[in-house]
Amino acid sequence: MPRLETALTKKLGIEHPVLLAPMGGNSGGAMASAVTEAGGLGIIGGGPGDRTFLEREIGRAGNSRVGIGFITWAIEDKPEIVSVALERQPAALFLSFGDHTPYVDEIKRAGVPLICQIQTLEQAIAAIDSGADVIVAQGQEAGGHGMTVRGTISLVPAIVDRAGDIPVVAAGGLADGRGLAAALMLGASGILMGTRFCAAEESLWQPDMKASVVAARGDDTIRTSVFDMLRGPDWPAPFDGRAVRIEAAERWQGREADLRENLDKERAAFTEAGKRGDSGTKVVWAGEGVDLIQDVQPAGDIVQQTVDQAVAMLTDKKTYSLV
Amino acid sequence: MPRLETALTKKLGIEHPVLLAPMGGNSGGAMASAVTEAGGLGIIGGGPGDRTFLEREIGRAGNSRVGIGFITWAIEDKPEIVSVALERQPAALFLSFGDHTPYVDEIKRAGVPLICQIQTLEQAIAAIDSGADVIVAQGQEAGGHGMTVRGTISLVPAIVDRAGDIPVVAAGGLADGRGLAAALMLGASGILMGTRFCAAEESLWQPDMKASVVAARGDDTIRTSVFDMLRGPDWPAPFDGRAVRIEAAERWQGREADLRENLDKERAAFTEAGKRGDSGTKVVWAGEGVDLIQDVQPAGDIVQQTVDQAVAMLTDKKTYSLV
Repeated sequence: MPRLETALTKKLGIEHPVLLAPMGGNSGGAMASAVTEAGGLGIIGGGPGDRTFLEREIGRAGNSRVGIGFITWAIEDKPEIVSVALERQPAALFLSFGDHTPYVDEIKRAGVPLICQIQTLEQAIAAIDSGADVIVAQGQEAGGHGMTVRGTISLVPAIVDRAGDIPVVAAGGLADGRGLAAALMLGASGILMGTRFCAAEESLWQPDMKASVVAARGDDTIRTSVFDMLRGPDWPAPFDGRAVRIEAAERWQGREADLRENLDKERAAFTEAGKRGDSGTKVVWAGEGVDLIQDVQPAGDIVQQTVDQAVAMLTDKKTYSLV
Repeated sequence: MPRLETALTKKLGIEHPVLLAPMGGNSGGAMASAVTEAGGLGIIGGGPGDRTFLEREIGRAGNSRVGIGFITWAIEDKPEIVSVALERQPAALFLSFGDHTPYVDEIKRAGVPLICQIQTLEQAIAAIDSGADVIVAQGQEAGGHGMTVRGTISLVPAIVDRAGDIPVVAAGGLADGRGLAAALMLGASGILMGTRFCAAEESLWQPDMKASVVAARGDDTIRTSVFDMLRGPDWPAPFDGRAVRIEAAERWQGREADLRENLDKERAAFTEAGKRGDSGTKVVWAGEGVDLIQDVQPAGDIVQQTVDQAVAMLTDKKTYSLV
């Protein structure tokens, strides 16, 4: 089976145009290593920059060439974590959700590729202008944190038209090789997947969370700030998150202002219910692509299947004939 | 230049897998005719079933083979409009936004293909089970009416996995040949475009509305029920609409319950402001794909350019090499 070479694979020195989303508490060193060893790029989810977690997971990645990602707004009070990461000479530094510009000079000096994940065309233009080496265009279909502004299928080509030679990676709602082939047709040079890897054997999630991802339907996920408000930590606007629908989120969606006024009381009740084992308090971050996820697999198999399916879609002309 | 033959072109007997969205007040007979004559399928936007409008626009389509579309919930009190449409032996009958099942038997008896547009996987399964000949999967990126549930890029493959031999058409956020090529990779056999045709010369919209579509950015569109609540007619849940952001919509988004309590007063104020010529009351329905729309063109040119660009993306391997 041939493989796909793109501007992204060349820029990052990888075999396949498939990136692991650096999901906090989920994308650890073992999963990042597995994705890299399969030919993609594994990126450890450094989340808000907990140094103990980061060093442990970097250790677990062994000698695999992996990237490191952070939640940009959450490291504002500990910018030194970027230096800690850069000292390891990661394959890439991945920043999302906030202003990455304070870190650009240091990242460039370290000679590490900067991957900026953005959620709007305006943010993409700012990232292009500030020296990002790769742009990840994340649509609102994505699981976990993001923004309710743009869908993947329109955001990607709009950014490609502005990005010049900078590789654009599609993210959000993509969970198989059809998504990778579609992304290439939109002008992207690869994809980033999160939810599909939530159901990987190497994911740090517990088995019941992985089972929820496999069982869920895309219709059953919702994007709202209510999940963060109820469980904490509360994210700053404009960020929200997509997870499998729970009753508490449906109750408050569209009434976020009311919830904020009663936040202490409602959060306490939600926490108490969780301690009692109420399954309605379990937040399973998941994107709309869950319909395409049928089982828990090794992360390396996910990479290979995704590429093989994309090549098949691109070459077998399953859906059209040229006449 | 070769053309694209798919399950959709065979099912509908058309040359190109490109459908005109039957937009009320916009997709008239002239535009439907232009799309059909260019090789796609033009579909007249019959909206809520006004017979005078429908008969006039059917007349304007001349001898072109066009389809007819209705807003399903809005024709509940005048189901005979379906018979009026079927008497003309349209190329297809297109139903969206509501329960199409009361009309299936009559449509089948007339031998007219039934195109069902849906917004969720659950609705798609119901449409498949009830005998739809074509499924249009409309993501929330779409302009105008729809639902805030699914993005196009994840909804399409999920439906393809359930649709068997029924052609699936992608809609929402698609405005050029990259979108068509991407849709084919997702397993769809064609696309439906609305917003791109809003900026067609033959659109029934006024020139200033077309100019707004060309000028707008995808980041500036929002999907909310506030547009309908303020301008009327008010659509039933769960339908809402995407249009270019106006101050009044931003003010009430997330506070829809408050708006509903004060609806008479707020709608009167909105109407009054409109009479005074306040441009903040102009609702320009538009999808996120507006970034890809650069000018006002003949509808036939849009069809041909879309197909040519899709063929180029599929054959020139602009974004990848097989190695």
